[in-house]
Amino acid sequence: MSSYGIGVDLGGTNLRIAAVDDRGTLLEKTTLGTQVSRGRSVVVNDMVQAIRSLATKLQRSGEMAGIGIAVPGIIEMETGIVRKSPNLPDWADYPVRSEIEKALGTSVILENDANAAALGEKWQGAARDFDSMCMLTLGTGVGGGLVFDGKVWHGMNGMAGELGHMNVEPEGHPCGCGSIGCLEQYASATAIVRMAREALASGVDTQLRRAAEPGRNEEFNSRIVFQLAIQGDPIAQDIFNRVGRSLGRKIGDLVNALNLHMYVIGGGVSSAWEAFSPALYEELRKRSLVYVATAPERPESPSPQGKHTIVTRALLGSDAGLYGSARLPLQQVQIVSTM
Amino acid sequence: MSSYGIGVDLGGTNLRIAAVDDRGTLLEKTTLGTQVSRGRSVVVNDMVQAIRSLATKLQRSGEMAGIGIAVPGIIEMETGIVRKSPNLPDWADYPVRSEIEKALGTSVILENDANAAALGEKWQGAARDFDSMCMLTLGTGVGGGLVFDGKVWHGMNGMAGELGHMNVEPEGHPCGCGSIGCLEQYASATAIVRMAREALASGVDTQLRRAAEPGRNEEFNSRIVFQLAIQGDPIAQDIFNRVGRSLGRKIGDLVNALNLHMYVIGGGVSSAWEAFSPALYEELRKRSLVYVATAPERPESPSPQGKHTIVTRALLGSDAGLYGSARLPLQQVQIVSTM
Repeated sequence: MSSYGIGVDLGGTNLRIAAVDDRGTLLEKTTLGTQVSRGRSVVVNDMVQAIRSLATKLQRSGEMAGIGIAVPGIIEMETGIVRKSPNLPDWADYPVRSEIEKALGTSVILENDANAAALGEKWQGAARDFDSMCMLTLGTGVGGGLVFDGKVWHGMNGMAGELGHMNVEPEGHPCGCGSIGCLEQYASATAIVRMAREALASGVDTQLRRAAEPGRNEEFNSRIVFQLAIQGDPIAQDIFNRVGRSLGRKIGDLVNALNLHMYVIGGGVSSAWEAFSPALYEELRKRSLVYVATAPERPESPSPQGKHTIVTRALLGSDAGLYGSARLPLQQVQIVSTM
Repeated sequence: MSSYGIGVDLGGTNLRIAAVDDRGTLLEKTTLGTQVSRGRSVVVNDMVQAIRSLATKLQRSGEMAGIGIAVPGIIEMETGIVRKSPNLPDWADYPVRSEIEKALGTSVILENDANAAALGEKWQGAARDFDSMCMLTLGTGVGGGLVFDGKVWHGMNGMAGELGHMNVEPEGHPCGCGSIGCLEQYASATAIVRMAREALASGVDTQLRRAAEPGRNEEFNSRIVFQLAIQGDPIAQDIFNRVGRSLGRKIGDLVNALNLHMYVIGGGVSSAWEAFSPALYEELRKRSLVYVATAPERPESPSPQGKHTIVTRALLGSDAGLYGSARLPLQQVQIVSTM
């Protein structure tokens, strides 16, 4: 009988749960109605109930290896306490792991959401053929995750992978982290809207102006900027070129430092891939001697054979974190059973 | 009986050899008179003879575990071929490992010189209490090495650790690697002299002017700029502040990405530590949320206890690469014997 892991993705708005077996087959996936804004005790309660009913439903499908939970924020790995979570302010310094363990009567594994997404893409997504990889998740912010030799690289105390706060512009836009010019300020959905508004404020002629008018039905967001870029608006294109250059510059640093096989770009903004990837590849070639020495002939459709540096889109969409968090207990079982 | 490793440091000018036992005691150290400029066959011949006589001399001191050779350049780990070596042009694409193995009748391990220095500092130097660390070697250029869980991180094909070519100034000074604004252009001995000449060309009033006059006995170098900085020359101080800021910016990126315990700065320029380290720490605090969350109370003299990010000077000086290269065969023996 095969075993399966339960993965939980605790997002800024939704709570999602899935069961994935040890061969990577998604057995079940549900999005709970729970609004995360209703507070941690409501969320923990609903999560525990959903995990219990999922385990009951699947009791004949295999052995449950355990539960992994992806949380947006900095997690202290040893204690299972969320140390900082901008999107879940009432979860900071809350002993989330022990509370859930108490309620469930079984151990759970916490992981940062961007790390879980990286592990998911490594296990069943774009990087499934490689042992080591890096993932950037471009959403409201920019998250990062590193997987070395099949396992999430946590660093000294779980804070590794803060790739969204690597510096792109030494004298750039202020960032919530306290620095200025971080990648997050040039490659997130938030940054795209900000750069569009900056362009409008400078008085340039662009289709963005109509789209950004107050009182329109549709909210002005990064998808609209993308649509206008695709339709040929040069200002919208400039914005995505800047997204691509910023990503290329930081991925270039990472390629020079780590010489990994694969760098995966996911998150909502990655759906604008065609608008930013040409500038990304161009910048990578300019910036990284290691990339130049290892680039595949066709960066967009490389052969997985050979020692090439591949920079590509994520494959699992918003399920990456679910796959990754379900993988965590399966990986632990594997480690224990081979010891 | 203990075992020992033989380490060879093939520098741009000199060839150095040492034997270090498995407890880290330096048994022997010699600098061969061989000028590396006389070509690879002379060097290989002298190296092989020196290794043989060292092994003969030490045959009663323990078992020889093997030979490690630190080479400046990019090494293809699988084949043992030097792929690129700016300081040893006639070694490029030369199957150095198999040539030496043929002459010696035993296997040898090649390693990039900056990686070997990192491994040396991790084993017996500043990072000896930590499993994972990063080292920057500030010399003619800027080399880098990463040690994760006690072993050099090579990446996909041995090119990892090119930290001197991470980007500091997006529109900065051209670099030999093809990019512009690399760390090497702001933190190497070469860069310090260039920045001093740039300052002189701008016509500022500085003590550097007399020191740089043609026809003086002493060559104008980074040590003179350091001496003037220490003596209070504001232009020389500005240059070292820039060295520190550039290092702080890139170490900040590395701290955010990797969350390692320890970042070690070595190489000749590190003797100017007091001139550049204040700006380094200041920039780190500005740039890295992970550093701010993990900085020791006194960055300059941190306690090794606790999970702090420590940025400090190397301890082994120019012997780091000898210790590291001698460690390579000892480490291999250890891995085999625990399998």
